[in-house]
Amino acid sequence: MPISNEPIYKRLMDEYDVSYDENGVNGQRLALRLNEIAKIGLTEQNGSNRPGFSQEERQVKQLVAKWMEEAGLEVHQDGAGNVIGRLEGTDLTLPTIMSGSHVDSVPNGGHFDGPLGVLAALEVVEAWRETGYRPRKSYEVVIFSDEEGARFNGGLLGSQAMVGDYEMDELQKLVSVDGLSFEEVLNKIDLSSDTYRQALRDFSDVELFVEVHIEQGKRLERAELPCGIVNGIAGPCWLEVTFTGKAGHAGNTPMNDRKDALVAASEFITSVNALPAKINDTAVATVGKIHISPNGVNVIPGEVTLYVDIRDIYEETRNQLVDLVIQEVENLSKSHQISISYKKTLEIPPVPIKKEIQLLLEEVLREQSIEPMRIPSGAGHDAMIIGQKTDIAMLFVKSIQGISHNPLEWTDLRDSVQAVQVLKRFIERLNERD
Amino acid sequence: MPISNEPIYKRLMDEYDVSYDENGVNGQRLALRLNEIAKIGLTEQNGSNRPGFSQEERQVKQLVAKWMEEAGLEVHQDGAGNVIGRLEGTDLTLPTIMSGSHVDSVPNGGHFDGPLGVLAALEVVEAWRETGYRPRKSYEVVIFSDEEGARFNGGLLGSQAMVGDYEMDELQKLVSVDGLSFEEVLNKIDLSSDTYRQALRDFSDVELFVEVHIEQGKRLERAELPCGIVNGIAGPCWLEVTFTGKAGHAGNTPMNDRKDALVAASEFITSVNALPAKINDTAVATVGKIHISPNGVNVIPGEVTLYVDIRDIYEETRNQLVDLVIQEVENLSKSHQISISYKKTLEIPPVPIKKEIQLLLEEVLREQSIEPMRIPSGAGHDAMIIGQKTDIAMLFVKSIQGISHNPLEWTDLRDSVQAVQVLKRFIERLNERD
Repeated sequence: MPISNEPIYKRLMDEYDVSYDENGVNGQRLALRLNEIAKIGLTEQNGSNRPGFSQEERQVKQLVAKWMEEAGLEVHQDGAGNVIGRLEGTDLTLPTIMSGSHVDSVPNGGHFDGPLGVLAALEVVEAWRETGYRPRKSYEVVIFSDEEGARFNGGLLGSQAMVGDYEMDELQKLVSVDGLSFEEVLNKIDLSSDTYRQALRDFSDVELFVEVHIEQGKRLERAELPCGIVNGIAGPCWLEVTFTGKAGHAGNTPMNDRKDALVAASEFITSVNALPAKINDTAVATVGKIHISPNGVNVIPGEVTLYVDIRDIYEETRNQLVDLVIQEVENLSKSHQISISYKKTLEIPPVPIKKEIQLLLEEVLREQSIEPMRIPSGAGHDAMIIGQKTDIAMLFVKSIQGISHNPLEWTDLRDSVQAVQVLKRFIERLNERD
Repeated sequence: MPISNEPIYKRLMDEYDVSYDENGVNGQRLALRLNEIAKIGLTEQNGSNRPGFSQEERQVKQLVAKWMEEAGLEVHQDGAGNVIGRLEGTDLTLPTIMSGSHVDSVPNGGHFDGPLGVLAALEVVEAWRETGYRPRKSYEVVIFSDEEGARFNGGLLGSQAMVGDYEMDELQKLVSVDGLSFEEVLNKIDLSSDTYRQALRDFSDVELFVEVHIEQGKRLERAELPCGIVNGIAGPCWLEVTFTGKAGHAGNTPMNDRKDALVAASEFITSVNALPAKINDTAVATVGKIHISPNGVNVIPGEVTLYVDIRDIYEETRNQLVDLVIQEVENLSKSHQISISYKKTLEIPPVPIKKEIQLLLEEVLREQSIEPMRIPSGAGHDAMIIGQKTDIAMLFVKSIQGISHNPLEWTDLRDSVQAVQVLKRFIERLNERD
């Protein structure tokens, strides 16, 4: 059993030296707060269990809201449970800058995916307080609800409410993993579908949303960099592909008289794995889920359904890859005597990040003597949703061994503090322009 | 709904002409009896539902036992529920010849798989009565219990009891699909594990067991032949192969940094499909069952377990094929950065059929102007089990479109009658030798 009052504090501080503190950013405060959040929903494996719209998620929001108020922010919760802490700028004619992330987790997840982005955004305010900096532009620290989607096998419901990217009919049909309807889940934390609708926000006054998030990959660790510039968020396209052959007895059907759906599907999987290399080095394609019928040891598979997850950060190349996969379906239909059909079950456009925003982040990184590395985000984030309405930026922080969604998820405190410094300077640079 | 008192009789007779009757074999009697059996456990789709050790299987056994007695056989049931009808030969110093099959079915199966072999064996006795033939060697018509294994997902429990090929400890652990223990299932039809043990038979007086069975394949239909000679029963070897890679986010993990267990498994499946052709044209290898973990659309598969069913009618070549498959496992372990392990979960030796027995069947087929075609049996049969103790022969009868274990399973009456003629002459030829 972990020492429950210190799930991560000691390890964070063991690796840290107070001399890393600069410009009002305080590593120990960040460590203490990460540790306080980690206590809520702590699992036996020292992981984190805070499903979206749960009491645990709510408890963390209330804790962070208290810190926000102590830091001088004006705090409110919207109808989707998103918490917004606002610092009024000195010039109210200028647009607002937003930063934040989420505090829910996957079941038995880690302690950095989400909370680090929220606390980094808040630490900027703390640093400003300590150094007496007053931003010209208003600044909002945001906690989005239910980013991970552990409750309804979906996710991003907080940010989607804020931009209005949902179909209420579909939400009403959801059943949570604990067997409750959308309405029932919201009611338990004093929200409802009516309040959810009211969470829609007008983004015309927003200049940019910036999210700090752990990388959940190994590129920064390999390059020995604390943080890096996200150059786009890959939008997934999902293809459901069905191979219809003919089931038959594995003993009685000669090899040359078979229509084996799994043999054709296997050829397809092998081909799909080789396709992204034909496009570029950011594109990916994965067959992660497969269903075989009848799935008996001594029966030739008659039908196979599988799903291809295709992503890239650029819409054009993502679509090129989708086309190559579909062409492979058609090639195999011709070479095998089995019928193959497909349909798109999901198609989210990639969210590009503006070159000028990347360049501004690059300048800030260089100021901090950090080599500016570009990293595509393969996973979706709240920034992807907010990107439908305003400009976005994302800063990835080094993950140890790329492990995520796991109690072993880890990010060193020094790297987090450097990311806060970058975030702070980035927002200050945005404040310098009109 | 089918006309329940004529599930198959009309169609059988529509295709039949009484002029096909010869040597005492009566097509109409065979059709009437197949039809009477079909009524018991008839499904809404006009299929057959008689699990092993069920009341329906027992009812058919009692019906056939009555016909056996009317045909002058001395009938008894052994402790495993196998029914044996014996015709004493004129020379009791000579060994016994046995023929038969089973009357249980898979859920919603057909009306020929099993019953045809039992009724063909009985029809030989009927024909002998009509023509006044008295065999020198004693002759036994056998109905084996639970060949299909629908009750315990196993099968061959009747013939295994007769030869003693079982572990009582294992049988006691079985749970039937309706949630009963082996003992409880047997008790419901007035049997028990004690009586089951008593079903062991001494085969020292048995010369040969011959089984007539539908082909459940398409070779005879393509060759336009009513029946053919089984040249061996393939023994299956099952390999469980586990591919252990590394699960990861389908969006965040670059293609060149993956350990995708499904990609490796797919390459393996493709290779396995091509291996039997390197051996001969009777060998087969099938991947019919596969389990993927975690099986999420957006997760790189971390682990895949699949099963390879490998068969041939010759032990040497079957084992060569098993070795090739294992070699493929080892090749892939080297070329992919994932670990692959395997274990044998089943290994039943193929049952060869003696050349001299095949040659005797060939002579009989030629007498009847039927081109003698050799067919390997990929599926297991009671003859495979009885083959552990005595010589066996098998005669396959043409299946329409190879369909089996399905209400659409069909064999034309004329082909069945020809098979009875061959069976009868074959047994008579065996009677001619000492």
